[in-house]
Amino acid sequence: MKVLVLGGDGYLGWPTALYLSRRGHQVGIVDNFARRRYDLELGVGSLVPIADLHQRVRRWQDISGLEIDTFIGDLTDPLFASETLASFRPEAVVHFAEQRSAPYSMIDRRHAVYTQVNNVVGTLNLLYAIAEQDRNIHLVKLGTMGEYGTPNIDIEEGFIEITHRGRTDVLPYPKQPGSFYHLSKVHDSHNIMFACRTWGVSATDLNQGIVYGHQTEETGLHPELATRFDYDGVFGTVLNRFCVQAVTGHPLTVYGSGGQTRGVLNLVDTLACVELALDHPAETGEYRVFNQFTESFSVGEMATLVAGEYSGEATIAHALDPRVEQEEHYYRAAHTKLLDLGLVPHLLEPTVIRNMLDVAERHKGNVDPTVIQSRVEWRSTSSHLSTDRNFDVTVNLPGEASSVGAIAED
Amino acid sequence: MKVLVLGGDGYLGWPTALYLSRRGHQVGIVDNFARRRYDLELGVGSLVPIADLHQRVRRWQDISGLEIDTFIGDLTDPLFASETLASFRPEAVVHFAEQRSAPYSMIDRRHAVYTQVNNVVGTLNLLYAIAEQDRNIHLVKLGTMGEYGTPNIDIEEGFIEITHRGRTDVLPYPKQPGSFYHLSKVHDSHNIMFACRTWGVSATDLNQGIVYGHQTEETGLHPELATRFDYDGVFGTVLNRFCVQAVTGHPLTVYGSGGQTRGVLNLVDTLACVELALDHPAETGEYRVFNQFTESFSVGEMATLVAGEYSGEATIAHALDPRVEQEEHYYRAAHTKLLDLGLVPHLLEPTVIRNMLDVAERHKGNVDPTVIQSRVEWRSTSSHLSTDRNFDVTVNLPGEASSVGAIAED
Repeated sequence: MKVLVLGGDGYLGWPTALYLSRRGHQVGIVDNFARRRYDLELGVGSLVPIADLHQRVRRWQDISGLEIDTFIGDLTDPLFASETLASFRPEAVVHFAEQRSAPYSMIDRRHAVYTQVNNVVGTLNLLYAIAEQDRNIHLVKLGTMGEYGTPNIDIEEGFIEITHRGRTDVLPYPKQPGSFYHLSKVHDSHNIMFACRTWGVSATDLNQGIVYGHQTEETGLHPELATRFDYDGVFGTVLNRFCVQAVTGHPLTVYGSGGQTRGVLNLVDTLACVELALDHPAETGEYRVFNQFTESFSVGEMATLVAGEYSGEATIAHALDPRVEQEEHYYRAAHTKLLDLGLVPHLLEPTVIRNMLDVAERHKGNVDPTVIQSRVEWRSTSSHLSTDRNFDVTVNLPGEASSVGAIAED
Repeated sequence: MKVLVLGGDGYLGWPTALYLSRRGHQVGIVDNFARRRYDLELGVGSLVPIADLHQRVRRWQDISGLEIDTFIGDLTDPLFASETLASFRPEAVVHFAEQRSAPYSMIDRRHAVYTQVNNVVGTLNLLYAIAEQDRNIHLVKLGTMGEYGTPNIDIEEGFIEITHRGRTDVLPYPKQPGSFYHLSKVHDSHNIMFACRTWGVSATDLNQGIVYGHQTEETGLHPELATRFDYDGVFGTVLNRFCVQAVTGHPLTVYGSGGQTRGVLNLVDTLACVELALDHPAETGEYRVFNQFTESFSVGEMATLVAGEYSGEATIAHALDPRVEQEEHYYRAAHTKLLDLGLVPHLLEPTVIRNMLDVAERHKGNVDPTVIQSRVEWRSTSSHLSTDRNFDVTVNLPGEASSVGAIAED
């Protein structure tokens, strides 16, 4: 199958491209290097060194004999989006090409607007290009479990049957996203659903949980094939960051009570889920949603797991929560559709955590301890991220204090 | 009260500004003249001549002795949004300043992206300006009943109590909007709800039905105080357009079976509803939704009403529906919150229709019959709106035909 991986230079996009290439698909990568520019902007970087895209692709060809096409450009440029599809003529598009950090979107007005325009316009341009060129292209879009928020009822996969005043309908599941980033994904979901209904586009929306892990069969073949490992306060996801905190002797910082519960999955399961979606495409005009995670933990449980597996001493510290979120809540989310298609989950076993701790240990010389704590306050409209590393989080509401901690979500 | 009316040069914004001015409020108008530019773009215009904004405001001062401030600029410019709020220091903001035509948003990719970016970014800039300057400013935002679509259960006002697998929660009502314009309003709703929860902003989202009518007590005081009356295929709303078709001897064109049912309200009730929202503001941090319409009709019923009141001969023609929508469906929507606040509806009585027909008759010399039919096909990604008036709607799907008709919604 010809598959275009949008955002194929990123944490998940790169291993996905390699995985699909190795499994016999003809793969093209689209990227505008936005993710690498965020590193430059924030003064942060991947814990594990990563090669640049062209070097990665050459190295992959050396090792595997397999070619990956590259298309460098920005999906918010409609001509680029259209010409790339016309040139590669994919049968499926896997769309990771969005700004994916909740804290980044909450830095200030400019970052909020950037995130929503970048994500929504990129996806709109893609939908138009598909509808204009080939409505049989299957769109596999990365959404997030964060679209649902934390309702007091079970979360279903995209839709819910509601009986109300004696009548029944199956309707889109209500959304309560918790950041301007999560909101951008909700906007995307509505736009894509409409394109499926109106133009007959076929789309699978993968509402993904928090991904942990670093190595896949393919990225492990050579250091130049490694993917990113983020631990900073803006882009680091919770389990990866706890591992870095453990090996550098910092307390594992938990926001508030730590009762925030989220679905998580192993990086290698992300790849398997994307392939399952590709192998079992949505019907013509169908918009379907898969909840893409394998198990749920509270942030406090995750901290305890990492601290328990670390060979040295690891402490857990509680900090004020910079986010506006429920610290204790009901959480039960369906995730059977991918299992029904054959997903065999790789769960968060002790060996998995120990492998992640090993990665962190091996590269801990690269850790900049000043970037680990989160400096983005949800209640503030402007969090000052100093690059000189001598900063205080400025909170413009009375009664708030600055805080440190690992983020609970993507 | 100091009230800033965003989009105060438009069909609803202008009469709202006059109404609030006359009722003793200190009113400022913000506008970027986008609506007048759409006229220039499409080669259309208001049936009833309208004065330019500065002339209107001068005329109002001559007649009433009341001053209205004007702020000319674009809300997508963050500095303009911020400086305007800082300069006027409103206690409430009434936000009409969005691209409000569904067909306009469906012309092609460029118009879809423009509509979503214009509406979403303008509202985001406004939310940031409020949160940064004064979180006590009450935001009264114009939404649309079209956010809900046509579910097979009763539509509630913004939220619905759902019992699911033995648990219950009150959640945002599921949205199924029918155009990129309606989607932009759904995106706004989610963004505003989040700003209320996160920053303590207070907002009332007025999910308005289709507005009909032209004259208010204030706009009737002088021809230079008149508001727009749109009848063209892109901006004309259904009842206004049926009246123009009747007086110019054209069949009243109904899409498909005409069973599409929508909530409607009289222009004078829009003004009353906005004032009720202002007089009874949302609580700190509250996001509330009022369904702002007074009665429901199918498109076929509306055509029959207009044809029945017209003194001459009026025929009704059915055409293929250029939209992707249900032509027959269940429709029952709650609209009690504004009634509870004291709204006394002006219903679609025969005299109201006859008054609208009189307006159309008086100005029928201004009608350009070539712009009445809709040229925007939902199923096409690019509807060619020729300005030379010798055009065919190009539909790029097999089995579709071009069609003419009055639009069912805003």
